[in-house]
Amino acid sequence: MTELANDRLLRALMRQPVDVTPVWMMRQAGRYLPEYRETRKRAGSFLDLCKNPELACEVTLQPLERFPLDGAILFSDILTIPDAMGLGLYFAEGEGPRFERPVRDEAAVKALGVPDAEQDLGYVMDAVRVIRRELNGRVPLIGFSGSPWTLATYMVEGGTTKNFARCKGMLYERPDLMHHLLSVTADAVTAYLNAQIRAGVQAVMLFDTWGGVLSPRAYEAFSLQYMEQIIGGLQRASEGRAVPVVLFTKGGGQWLSRIAKSGCDAVGVDWTTDLADARVLVQDEVALQGNLDPCILYASGERIREEVGRVLDSYGHGPGHVFNLGHGIHPDVDPEHARVLVEAVHELSPPYHR
Amino acid sequence: MTELANDRLLRALMRQPVDVTPVWMMRQAGRYLPEYRETRKRAGSFLDLCKNPELACEVTLQPLERFPLDGAILFSDILTIPDAMGLGLYFAEGEGPRFERPVRDEAAVKALGVPDAEQDLGYVMDAVRVIRRELNGRVPLIGFSGSPWTLATYMVEGGTTKNFARCKGMLYERPDLMHHLLSVTADAVTAYLNAQIRAGVQAVMLFDTWGGVLSPRAYEAFSLQYMEQIIGGLQRASEGRAVPVVLFTKGGGQWLSRIAKSGCDAVGVDWTTDLADARVLVQDEVALQGNLDPCILYASGERIREEVGRVLDSYGHGPGHVFNLGHGIHPDVDPEHARVLVEAVHELSPPYHR
Repeated sequence: MTELANDRLLRALMRQPVDVTPVWMMRQAGRYLPEYRETRKRAGSFLDLCKNPELACEVTLQPLERFPLDGAILFSDILTIPDAMGLGLYFAEGEGPRFERPVRDEAAVKALGVPDAEQDLGYVMDAVRVIRRELNGRVPLIGFSGSPWTLATYMVEGGTTKNFARCKGMLYERPDLMHHLLSVTADAVTAYLNAQIRAGVQAVMLFDTWGGVLSPRAYEAFSLQYMEQIIGGLQRASEGRAVPVVLFTKGGGQWLSRIAKSGCDAVGVDWTTDLADARVLVQDEVALQGNLDPCILYASGERIREEVGRVLDSYGHGPGHVFNLGHGIHPDVDPEHARVLVEAVHELSPPYHR
Repeated sequence: MTELANDRLLRALMRQPVDVTPVWMMRQAGRYLPEYRETRKRAGSFLDLCKNPELACEVTLQPLERFPLDGAILFSDILTIPDAMGLGLYFAEGEGPRFERPVRDEAAVKALGVPDAEQDLGYVMDAVRVIRRELNGRVPLIGFSGSPWTLATYMVEGGTTKNFARCKGMLYERPDLMHHLLSVTADAVTAYLNAQIRAGVQAVMLFDTWGGVLSPRAYEAFSLQYMEQIIGGLQRASEGRAVPVVLFTKGGGQWLSRIAKSGCDAVGVDWTTDLADARVLVQDEVALQGNLDPCILYASGERIREEVGRVLDSYGHGPGHVFNLGHGIHPDVDPEHARVLVEAVHELSPPYHR
């Protein structure tokens, strides 16, 4: 395996000293980049793009060609697992993901099985291998999965939802069914992330996009518990170094101290919590990743630099901060504004590491 | 003025002792009721319904005819103020509110004026007077307004939004403009709520539906500050008793201790915070209103009763709790499930008031 030329991201995620704060952006390989839209057109559908390892590699690397980012994140969809479970993922143009066969009754829940990550999701592992080869040790590659609860919302609703009526209906009315669904899904996520690690990802992130719509009690029982189970089952080292695990519950600011005890190495923080407060809540036991409001990228370069400075200052001195947005970059953002962000992090952060 | 037959709601909002926990539901007069849909059809458009005092009264009273609720809430739209400012509110069928003339540049912001609440929003005051007459002292009538920041999101975006690109863009790029917009709107809200109080509402609520999408710093400067200004300008007593003020920032759980110091009498809490924790955060200085996840109403009666019990238990003993949902009741909920909720609150709460 190639030596890593830039390992700041991995070091910061493990709370080890770094020279400057590492930075990457959620959805950095995405629609805001014209070259992404170009590749996407060539690929055919969005799913075709995800399932083509060469093209998935191409879009994964695109933001790195433009900006001095400290990490690459595997280009893939959050719903590959339920797709591999046989739910029939498709994308209705302009309407987001949909499943042909949503999981809405006892029979459907009980029929769910854990996919074979190497076989049924082999295209993802192929993409990881191709990306690692093409990255050639420049920066680490981050793998990821949706959290079981987040996947469950799509699986039960059959797509995106505003009210979470069906999935919360099942959670409240048939907690036994929801637990079964989540348990199978947690096993699938564990196997999936371990396969990604074997294929070459150097850090993994659990995206709990919809954990924040739950009550504290339901969050603990139906989301966090399963993420803890996954974290406990992950291969935590590869190629002679630690594989850091990041857990990000969007809207989970109130539960940060609890999340920090999940066994993860780093916690994602959205922009509704100051990093200074978050740091107190997690008692410096984990690294923090975040947390610029992605809407700041709609403002001018000068304002972006100012806000980057505020985030760095809010985290303050010492190791354990990975700069990121608090949510994926919006598709209508000017790529040059993303450049300002990345460059500002590198330029303004050294004083915090002295 | 008629003596109030049931003043539990007003007492609880002022942290005075009550016999049972009072209960009302956000959007209790709404689409989940077949009789509402009937009146709505007769009225014509949604706005026609809001602007017709007799029909607004009819739908305000409908949930009270069905359930033993402890309060009525004025039926009106959150966007009456920007409409009265001349922005041209309309509703595209199935698409939510829209403005013909959104406020997107300096000229548009500077052209904004404070509407005359009695003249330009006279239909709202007429509705208040009709409802008070028809309520005839059964329960108190709650008036309301959107918060300045919440109104600003619609005014700048021109309707509902997912990313808040335009309004946050203005906030970050031209804070001076956003402050001007919010300042004029805060004056308008103050005048509007005072006119509602003069017309007969017995409590008022500020709905800060979108405060929770801001960073802590931006929330304080662009939302809370203006709500504090409004609260400071309100007429706090009428008809010989206090007019309680409720402030509800959806998604504001992390900021409850700060919100409690805004000068309000009660704080709305969504279901992402346990009332026990909320009570500690606000140090019993204000009453709390909430906080059942409205999705629990998709479950069976038995489960609803159980969860009502949990919320009551979480608040615990003593005065200062008004039972409510953590968000408006969903339009596809079975009205009989709402009945279970209301009855369960009255049945299960007396032990907490002994």
